[in-house]
Amino acid sequence: MEESGGTEAQKRRAGESAAGVVDDGDVVGLGTGSTAAAAIRELGRRVESGLDVRGVPTSHGARRLAREVGVPLTTLEAATPDVAVDGADQVADGDLVKGGGAAHTREKVVDAAADRFVVVVDAGKPAPALDHPVPVEALADAVPAVERRVETLGGAPTLRAAERKDGPVITDNGNPVLDCDFGVVDDPRALAAALDGIPGVVGHGLFVGLADEVHVGTDDGVEVR
Amino acid sequence: MEESGGTEAQKRRAGESAAGVVDDGDVVGLGTGSTAAAAIRELGRRVESGLDVRGVPTSHGARRLAREVGVPLTTLEAATPDVAVDGADQVADGDLVKGGGAAHTREKVVDAAADRFVVVVDAGKPAPALDHPVPVEALADAVPAVERRVETLGGAPTLRAAERKDGPVITDNGNPVLDCDFGVVDDPRALAAALDGIPGVVGHGLFVGLADEVHVGTDDGVEVR
Repeated sequence: MEESGGTEAQKRRAGESAAGVVDDGDVVGLGTGSTAAAAIRELGRRVESGLDVRGVPTSHGARRLAREVGVPLTTLEAATPDVAVDGADQVADGDLVKGGGAAHTREKVVDAAADRFVVVVDAGKPAPALDHPVPVEALADAVPAVERRVETLGGAPTLRAAERKDGPVITDNGNPVLDCDFGVVDDPRALAAALDGIPGVVGHGLFVGLADEVHVGTDDGVEVR
Repeated sequence: MEESGGTEAQKRRAGESAAGVVDDGDVVGLGTGSTAAAAIRELGRRVESGLDVRGVPTSHGARRLAREVGVPLTTLEAATPDVAVDGADQVADGDLVKGGGAAHTREKVVDAAADRFVVVVDAGKPAPALDHPVPVEALADAVPAVERRVETLGGAPTLRAAERKDGPVITDNGNPVLDCDFGVVDDPRALAAALDGIPGVVGHGLFVGLADEVHVGTDDGVEVR
């Protein structure tokens, strides 16, 4: 799920462009968030016109939307995605920050399993360097220890508060999320490895070296990087 | 939890020796398994004699035993452990394989948070090199993708089957465990980092560079390394 910034038209263009790379017979990782949703809707239209695909959802939300628009579903158990289409909260140099929708752990599982990972974003997401806070999903009991380790790495962690629920946001996996502000991330690969190594971290939103292409929806069309 | 091998007397000696390093006023990480249980029982006896400690349990089992023997409990939220006492399934050169009891993710959170981590094992656990299968806790949905990644790293994963429950063992965190046989692990640090980096891995049983001392219970006494 992305924050506001780009227009609906930009998101729709990016999503439709990415849905266009899906071939007949493909297994498709279905991302979470408003731009990925545009891709799922376009896939639904193509299925109606006869396209044969099966989707692997990255979240409850993606699963629900896929059912609604008629994209048949499968699982990682049954199939490996040929392509995954997913959004991002920020993109710089092909690396991503994801997790505004708290689905980043499962998204990374599906996106990394896919042969080809296509990122879809509006024009507000590309940046010269990553400086968006990095969502870190952690076991509830481990939160105080994880917070201390994030601070040691130079980050400022904030437990993400829920709305329409008391206390913190809880992911589809049953865990809370810390939004960790590291300022400008000079070395995303090193930070990703350091976060991976913190005991109690279930998954974080730095996606380094995973994206194969980025489709940026603009006011005129789509720019593919 | 350790597999069989050492004697009960060896486990008891190691546990009692480690409990002896705990000072008045300490916060103590309470490990899981039969040798750590010996340490918790000894702490209970010392509490009865007036020792002031609070324990941070690493599992349901450790929490239950601590309550039973009268060790007062606290949490990582309220306190940082001065010392943690925990067992291991294998020890080589100060590095450990843990997770026979499927508690390794939470154990690593507590053991790594402690200022001093004391490992307690019987004489059957030290080895020239780590070759025990490495338990890897993974999100249920991610198991097929994690299995493929473990195989890429040269490991043979086996989903741990439960007893007294249908299907796989489920950890206290709600996830299944893959026992991953890598043969002899030549570079534990590199393997630990590679496992940390697999999307969907919640925690693994390689404990590298975490142990401060190892108390080995023998037939004659205790050897501290």
